[in-house]
Amino acid sequence: MAPARSSKDRVVLDTSLFVNPDVRASLGATPTEALESFLFIAAQLPILDFYMPPSIFEELMNFVDRDKIPGDLLVYLHQKSPKRHELKTPAYLIYELVEEMRDRINKGLRVAEKAVRSDAPLNDNIQDLRRKYREALREGIIDSKEDVDLLLLAMELDALLVTADQGALKWADKLGIRWLIPEKFKEYLMGSMKKSELIEGQ
Amino acid sequence: MAPARSSKDRVVLDTSLFVNPDVRASLGATPTEALESFLFIAAQLPILDFYMPPSIFEELMNFVDRDKIPGDLLVYLHQKSPKRHELKTPAYLIYELVEEMRDRINKGLRVAEKAVRSDAPLNDNIQDLRRKYREALREGIIDSKEDVDLLLLAMELDALLVTADQGALKWADKLGIRWLIPEKFKEYLMGSMKKSELIEGQ
Repeated sequence: MAPARSSKDRVVLDTSLFVNPDVRASLGATPTEALESFLFIAAQLPILDFYMPPSIFEELMNFVDRDKIPGDLLVYLHQKSPKRHELKTPAYLIYELVEEMRDRINKGLRVAEKAVRSDAPLNDNIQDLRRKYREALREGIIDSKEDVDLLLLAMELDALLVTADQGALKWADKLGIRWLIPEKFKEYLMGSMKKSELIEGQ
Repeated sequence: MAPARSSKDRVVLDTSLFVNPDVRASLGATPTEALESFLFIAAQLPILDFYMPPSIFEELMNFVDRDKIPGDLLVYLHQKSPKRHELKTPAYLIYELVEEMRDRINKGLRVAEKAVRSDAPLNDNIQDLRRKYREALREGIIDSKEDVDLLLLAMELDALLVTADQGALKWADKLGIRWLIPEKFKEYLMGSMKKSELIEGQ
């Protein structure tokens, strides 16, 4: 299933790089600025090919001012879905997913029972329930089509995955996918630019 | 991944065949009786090989009187786990699992919120919450290691799956696994015995 590797390295990017304020700080003050400056750098990086699953790209477009995104630079950010109907994953992952969900489902019920027994004011109680339920069932796991797209695309392309999503990172480990601390993304790009210049100089 | 097929057909069995009262009725009045009479029939069926994942077998042992199970007949019910670290599953199954869980997690939160807002007596409310939460999050999906064992073993052996678990049957369809209406299991065995006699008579 591994594609032939070109001399270029591949990088798969998540929305969180541009949307999460802590993570995008070095790239820009807003998601739009962060994406713009990333595209500007990417255009100068012949040794890297950047990919984003279309599901993730659509998500990102909700956070940016579309009119300000230079369309000509989008040639440096390929939109591609993983080959969902061709790729195969190790069967033990199904076990891990099912077992993890089982634990979390039980935790979710405990959270719900506690809320039913609570004598807090109704609105506070509901708010608290929603937060704790979300923590129990959604945080730190892969819980969306978008997460799966990211992981499988990185797997298919044998690419480096850059995301701030903890669930996706945990699964990247299970699947043997390379990943980068997202806060270091800008520095990684700068390092790649230097490397690229060295290669060109040879 | 498909193993070489012998002339024998393979059948993977679930606990539910012996434990679920509606399903086991034709085999015996108790789980012990049902398992005994199954093993007795299996011993006379040279054209079928019966398998049960060890995780499922252990589950079954909790429902039967172990002392009454004729050990010599266990030679007709192979205990074998699927090759969890060798088998591969189509990647789109991960999407289906994740998307289904996501829907159900949202449903579970709605059930919980309704219980918090309810003015039913506390105990009734908690009972009702547990039942509805279980329905929302557990019924009709694969939610245990045992379910996954059943499906993957049937896949690995290219076997017929016999279970009354709706979640497992739904996933058998997704994976292209043959399955049998569990209530017809006894008749299926009887039909196989006739077929077996015909083959021997030739």
